[in-house]
Amino acid sequence: MIKNDLFLRALKGETVDRPPVWMMRQAGRYLPEFMEIKEKYDFFTRCRTPELASEITVQPIRRYGMDAAILFSDILVIPQAMNIEVEMKPNFGPYLPNPIRSQKDLNNVIIPDIQESLGYVMEAIKATKEKLNNEIPLIGFAGSPWTILCYCVEGQGSKNFAKAKELCYTNPIVAHSLLQKITDTTIAYLKAKVEAGVDAVQIFDSWGGMLSPTDYQEFSWQYIQQIINALKDRTPVIAFGKGCWFALQEMAKSGASALGVDWTCSARNARYLSGGRITLQGNFDPSRLLSSPKVIKQMVTQMINEFGKDRYIVNLGHGILPNIPVENAAAFVEAVKEYKV
Amino acid sequence: MIKNDLFLRALKGETVDRPPVWMMRQAGRYLPEFMEIKEKYDFFTRCRTPELASEITVQPIRRYGMDAAILFSDILVIPQAMNIEVEMKPNFGPYLPNPIRSQKDLNNVIIPDIQESLGYVMEAIKATKEKLNNEIPLIGFAGSPWTILCYCVEGQGSKNFAKAKELCYTNPIVAHSLLQKITDTTIAYLKAKVEAGVDAVQIFDSWGGMLSPTDYQEFSWQYIQQIINALKDRTPVIAFGKGCWFALQEMAKSGASALGVDWTCSARNARYLSGGRITLQGNFDPSRLLSSPKVIKQMVTQMINEFGKDRYIVNLGHGILPNIPVENAAAFVEAVKEYKV
Repeated sequence: MIKNDLFLRALKGETVDRPPVWMMRQAGRYLPEFMEIKEKYDFFTRCRTPELASEITVQPIRRYGMDAAILFSDILVIPQAMNIEVEMKPNFGPYLPNPIRSQKDLNNVIIPDIQESLGYVMEAIKATKEKLNNEIPLIGFAGSPWTILCYCVEGQGSKNFAKAKELCYTNPIVAHSLLQKITDTTIAYLKAKVEAGVDAVQIFDSWGGMLSPTDYQEFSWQYIQQIINALKDRTPVIAFGKGCWFALQEMAKSGASALGVDWTCSARNARYLSGGRITLQGNFDPSRLLSSPKVIKQMVTQMINEFGKDRYIVNLGHGILPNIPVENAAAFVEAVKEYKV
Repeated sequence: MIKNDLFLRALKGETVDRPPVWMMRQAGRYLPEFMEIKEKYDFFTRCRTPELASEITVQPIRRYGMDAAILFSDILVIPQAMNIEVEMKPNFGPYLPNPIRSQKDLNNVIIPDIQESLGYVMEAIKATKEKLNNEIPLIGFAGSPWTILCYCVEGQGSKNFAKAKELCYTNPIVAHSLLQKITDTTIAYLKAKVEAGVDAVQIFDSWGGMLSPTDYQEFSWQYIQQIINALKDRTPVIAFGKGCWFALQEMAKSGASALGVDWTCSARNARYLSGGRITLQGNFDPSRLLSSPKVIKQMVTQMINEFGKDRYIVNLGHGILPNIPVENAAAFVEAVKEYKV
């Protein structure tokens, strides 16, 4: 069905001529054509208008020809649908004016009807699939329950999410209730995305690496595992945990089709820790896209040599930064397409 | 000479009845007696007045009886002495109004005369040694050159120190010149501290874990190694790199007496990665001091069981947080003192 199925074949662990490539946050602020839309429409208008969300999703594909698209959206549409107010403040980031820090706060949190509250995402998927015209696969995504909890409790971004951790360690009952509500919502949400047409899903655990291995198991991983269990027979699942090198062994046994790794985990360590058989995705330091295009190409080639061309998806180790020159992003993608064993 | 030499014996790898204990940032904002001084004197007055710095240093020892004291000071006294303006803004943290981002900026950076610019630190050491009266050892410290560069280039704290990394990847010549100037200053500074009386030194690489293993080697570790080489025959050196699990193997061969690890690296991983012979220090999650005293004691006992009582120094995995109740910090220290094999 899909003409360029390199990404799906890598997820299955099949032998390929070169690895597929996409970039986390590839539909974003480093693109002039994205900035034009951003100037006209606010964040949630962009997310909620299928024509805008689908246009933003395909912008990087038109420019660079990645091997997969990822739907333009945000992980915080989930708490928003759960009756937690979420604002996107310019030059500040997400702001949740009524953070969840007690049983009383939690009582107002609902498990929403997905079509009613997040139907606009499904419409955006359908519009995007039409635009992509079966050329490449479309990825849907969600934040991990722990990462969503971080924002719900802290109320904004943070260096160490001290308030989120404080809730977990002083009131674990409330923390686990919130995590389970997020998990149940996320499972229903991702199932609806698959029905609407995404070809794979990725779970972003951006803040799992702030937890000790024991606390990671208790407050993050067990909920991600629930999501994988519920989705894995419907679609390939990619689990990405920033800073979660210590959990790769367990993650490899989860039923996920691939694991994302960040740039602090070398290819060798990532293969060793994950057992050497599962497909890995990553792990170029987003800041390293500030090097010259020539250096970027050398580093990408070396990265592929180190991971190996099979069971590997070329990506960054976290989202692309807003200040990356478009020609540097081009060099990243071109290096993969030019790769020869 | 020193009556309680548990800490120094652990640094030598000797067999002990129980491991020694201290806490990073133990002289700090969680202590009411510290807050009293903080209300009266601004940050640099506290650092520069030997009577105040020494008093603050011994406050936690009086209250809890740790096995080592660490001099109250700040890693940013080094750039300040190097002719880079450093302010401590209340409720904001460090602020450097003239960050170093070009060769022109770098031209104003000097390698200072230590006694002239940082003599107040040596006076604080002498005053502290008198107050400690040879009961326990005194630790001196410095930031790693990379961590100091992060602040010098970024101009303030940051989630990802994107500007610091940008300088390294777009203008490595300026970055390395700055790193070498910081290294030379730090070596002279730590040598002076040893002459003034500290019994060991710790190098804090708080932001090394933001670099890929290759970039860590180039922009952080090679400079830490220079410092270790220059100091190791004069005093025991502890190298602490937050998030630097991937470098433990190399760090273990450096001549450092001990390596600090954070809470994402389990005792088992830390022993394995560091080769099993070097003394390790850490690694309690500072946020976990928000658990109840009973839970803290159980977790500390388990942590010692996992690291083993020998070649081990009980500590946090990063600095203690301002909102930790004093009885919880007490539970942490007591659990170590009550430890029985």
